[in-house]
Amino acid sequence: MGLFTKHIRSMDDLFVHTLQDIYYAEHQIKKALPKMVDKASDPALKQAFERHLTETEGQIERLEKVFELHGVKAKGVTCDAIDGIIKETESIVHEVKDATVLDAALVAAAQAVEHYEITRYGTLASWAEQLGHPDCASLLRETLAEEEGADQKLTTLAKGHLNRVAKAA
Amino acid sequence: MGLFTKHIRSMDDLFVHTLQDIYYAEHQIKKALPKMVDKASDPALKQAFERHLTETEGQIERLEKVFELHGVKAKGVTCDAIDGIIKETESIVHEVKDATVLDAALVAAAQAVEHYEITRYGTLASWAEQLGHPDCASLLRETLAEEEGADQKLTTLAKGHLNRVAKAA
Repeated sequence: MGLFTKHIRSMDDLFVHTLQDIYYAEHQIKKALPKMVDKASDPALKQAFERHLTETEGQIERLEKVFELHGVKAKGVTCDAIDGIIKETESIVHEVKDATVLDAALVAAAQAVEHYEITRYGTLASWAEQLGHPDCASLLRETLAEEEGADQKLTTLAKGHLNRVAKAA
Repeated sequence: MGLFTKHIRSMDDLFVHTLQDIYYAEHQIKKALPKMVDKASDPALKQAFERHLTETEGQIERLEKVFELHGVKAKGVTCDAIDGIIKETESIVHEVKDATVLDAALVAAAQAVEHYEITRYGTLASWAEQLGHPDCASLLRETLAEEEGADQKLTTLAKGHLNRVAKAA
């Protein structure tokens, strides 16, 4: 769909398309996180990824609620951005030799994922408000706050000890 | 390079690899921005993209200075993340019919690019500090501030009138 037709004709269409984009992205993140838990060595980092996996499951449910409130069926459309971000993460895992350096690389990769989600949820919440759907906007802002929190926690983890350990490796 | 060997062995290697990643990304953004200027209808949005093109050229020069300070030759490595983000932007351009809706989609796409740059420069500046390169960190933080400023300007543009115009379309 959409390859040969200009099927996005209104802000409402664009809102739904972008919901579908992040719905697909959340599912890809849900698949990628267990691999990141597996590759991480630092227990606090493993725990942060596990916690974010639980959050991601809640965010998928919240998106399904937004689709429902908006009166459309929940479905995903391929999101080349998240596919690229995850592909880059997989490459770096293969290229890094030292476990503590890999932890630092995994934090950076996870923050790239978080920032993609932050920008998409920020945009979607703003569009929902302007389209007159404060209920959808409120749910989207809940997820936005979680993503910003997850990004902050990763920054704290990285600054706290991961980079110092990796530097000494 | 790197497909069959674990060539990243230290935080210094990871720092250089990530510099190469964002150096490639900046070049791809430099190529994409003129197309975004061309596709945008709103004069303020066109102007924002033009201004960011000038900033991007400055950011490339700043990265070359960081490479030089770090004693390595400036070069890029393929960045699947930015390739995916730009591919998604190109798709949306083909799918949106209305010019004002397209402007809203272009703002969202540009903010996804900004957020990728924000996360990468944030990580690089932090690593540069911890590796004992405050001169590199300072240059990277200059670019980070520019990216955050560009993102803020796009949010202001979107909230100010673009979305309202698109909603009425």
